Amino acid sequence: MTLARVGPHDARPLDSPSISSSCRFQVAWGDCDPAGIIYYPTYFHWFDTATWTLFATVGLPIMVMRAQGRMMPLVAADIQFHHPAVPGDQCEVRSSIARWGGKSFVVRHEARRADGKLLATGSETRVWVTQDGAGQPLASEPVPDEVKALFVPK
Amino acid sequence: MTLARVGPHDARPLDSPSISSSCRFQVAWGDCDPAGIIYYPTYFHWFDTATWTLFATVGLPIMVMRAQGRMMPLVAADIQFHHPAVPGDQCEVRSSIARWGGKSFVVRHEARRADGKLLATGSETRVWVTQDGAGQPLASEPVPDEVKALFVPK
Amino acid sequence: MTLARVGPHDARPLDSPSISSSCRFQVAWGDCDPAGIIYYPTYFHWFDTATWTLFATVGLPIMVMRAQGRMMPLVAADIQFHHPAVPGDQCEVRSSIARWGGKSFVVRHEARRADGKLLATGSETRVWVTQDGAGQPLASEPVPDEVKALFVPK
Amino acid sequence: MTLARVGPHDARPLDSPSISSSCRFQVAWGDCDPAGIIYYPTYFHWFDTATWTLFATVGLPIMVMRAQGRMMPLVAADIQFHHPAVPGDQCEVRSSIARWGGKSFVVRHEARRADGKLLATGSETRVWVTQDGAGQPLASEPVPDEVKALFVPK
Repeated sequence: MTLARVGPHDARPLDSPSISSSCRFQVAWGDCDPAGIIYYPTYFHWFDTATWTLFATVGLPIMVMRAQGRMMPLVAADIQFHHPAVPGDQCEVRSSIARWGGKSFVVRHEARRADGKLLATGSETRVWVTQDGAGQPLASEPVPDEVKALFVPK
Repeated sequence: MTLARVGPHDARPLDSPSISSSCRFQVAWGDCDPAGIIYYPTYFHWFDTATWTLFATVGLPIMVMRAQGRMMPLVAADIQFHHPAVPGDQCEVRSSIARWGGKSFVVRHEARRADGKLLATGSETRVWVTQDGAGQPLASEPVPDEVKALFVPK
Repeated sequence: MTLARVGPHDARPLDSPSISSSCRFQVAWGDCDPAGIIYYPTYFHWFDTATWTLFATVGLPIMVMRAQGRMMPLVAADIQFHHPAVPGDQCEVRSSIARWGGKSFVVRHEARRADGKLLATGSETRVWVTQDGAGQPLASEPVPDEVKALFVPK
Repeated sequence: MTLARVGPHDARPLDSPSISSSCRFQVAWGDCDPAGIIYYPTYFHWFDTATWTLFATVGLPIMVMRAQGRMMPLVAADIQFHHPAVPGDQCEVRSSIARWGGKSFVVRHEARRADGKLLATGSETRVWVTQDGAGQPLASEPVPDEVKALFVPK
C-alpha cells in the first residue's frame, strides 16, 4: 500500500469535543538515556499505546479492530518537548481526536507528570484502512460515521 | 532545565548546503509490529542515532561532546511516512543540518530503502546546551561558529 | 569495571522468604512482533523495571540509590517462556530476592496474565557496586546487612 | 499454543560444527541507560536479530520462512555479561547452532567489541513450529533434516 498524502484541506474542526482517554506510564530506568532523562522515542511508544487505549475506551479494542479487518496506519506524527522526565516519574497521557478528515484523522496527545507539569504534546495523523481477510489488499476508506459517533461525549 | 520554546523567527535558511551523513539500518523482526510493518517509534531511534552519526562525521563524536559538557536535547520532532518498511529491508538514513537558529538547529532526516524507495522523512529541532562539570546547571547557548563551520562542505 | 564472575558457591538459600513486589504492565501493540505475540526482549525491560520497583518497595527508590552512589549492574539473566502474551493482555510481574551471595544477589521474576496464566519466569543476577562521586571508580562490595534486612517481611 | 517444555535429555551435541553468522551493531545513545552503559535488553534484541541473520545466511531469510509457514518461537534464553558496552562501541555478534534437539534447538551468541573484547555471551532455545496457512493452529515438529543439513559447513 502506498500511503496517500493527506492535504491540509482534509482537516475539518470538530463540531463537538471528542471523548478523551487517559493512560498512565511510569518512566522506567531503561526508558532513559545517558543524560538521565527520557529517551524521546519512548514518548511515541506511549502515544501509539494511548491511541489504542482511546479506541478501546469507545468500544473498539485492538483485537476487535483487527478481527474486523480495520487498521489505522500513520501518515505523520509530531512532538514538542516541554520539560524532561526522569526515572520514576509517574506520567499520564491524555488523548482525544483533534479532527476528522475524509479518510484520515488526527489524534492529539498530552503527556503530564503526576503533579500536572506538562512534559510533551504531540499528534498522530492516521488513515482509516480496511482489509477483506488475511492476504487481501488494504484500502483506505472514509472513517465510518458510526465510528466517529463513538467519540461524541454522551 | 526548562526547554525554551523556539519560535519560527529563530529559523534562518542555510547560506550553503550542510555536510550530510549516512547511516545504514536493517529492519529487524523486533522492529515490526503485528501488522508486519515497522513500528513507527523505530524511526525516531534511527533519527536520533543518525544525528549522532552526523556530528561524529564532522569530528564531534558523542563521547567527545559529553567530555566537553556539550549536549543537544530536543525541543521538537516530526515525521512523515511515505511507504511501510518490512522485516529484512535494508535502509539508509541521510541526515544534514536544515537550518541554524540562534540557540537551536534543525536536523533533517530522509529514510530510504536500498532500492531508493522513500520510506520516511522527518526533522529534529535541538538546542545547544553546555554544562560546567557533572552536577552543574545546564545552560542553552548560541551554537558556536566553529561548530557551524564544521558542517560546511570543504 | 570488569564484572567479576560469580560462582555457584556464592549462592546461599535465603533464611526467610523475601518481601515481594508487584508491577503491572499491559502488552502494547508495539511490544509485539509480526507473529502477533510479545517480542521477548520486552520481558527483560519488564524484569529490570520490576527490580527497581522491588527496591523502591523496601525504601530504596532508584533516585535515592543513585544519590548514594549505589548501583546494581547485571552479571547474568535468564528467562523461560511458558505461554505467549498478545496485545492488550494485562500482566503482573511479581519479584523477590531468590538469594543473597557475598557481593551478588539473584532477583526472581514471575510474569502472569491477569487471569493467573503463567507467561514467563526468569531471574537476574546482579552485583552490589558503589561509587564515591561522579567519575570515581566503581567497586563491587558485599551487600550491606542493613540492605538485606529491608527485604525481611515484618 | 502451549510451549512444550524441553528437557535436558533433548539436547544432543552437534556431530560437526555449525555454520556461524556475523551481525554488526553500533551501540546507540538510546541503547544506553542513565549509568551510561548499554541497557541489557538491547542484547536480546541483537540476539533475536542475529538468529534471523544466521538463518538467512544458510538460505532461509525471514520472509521465506514466514511464507512457508515456518516459525521458531522461544522457550528459553539466557545471557552472561562480561564487560559493559558504551555509546559508539562497534560490536559484532557471532551466532551458531549449539545443538539440535528433537523439536528444539539452541542458538549460541557471542557479542564482542571491534577490538575483540568479549562483552556478552548467551543462548536462545527455540522450537520448530509450522502452520498450514493464516489462522490455522501452530504445531511443533521435529526440525527437518534438510534444514539441519543447511548448517553443516561445506
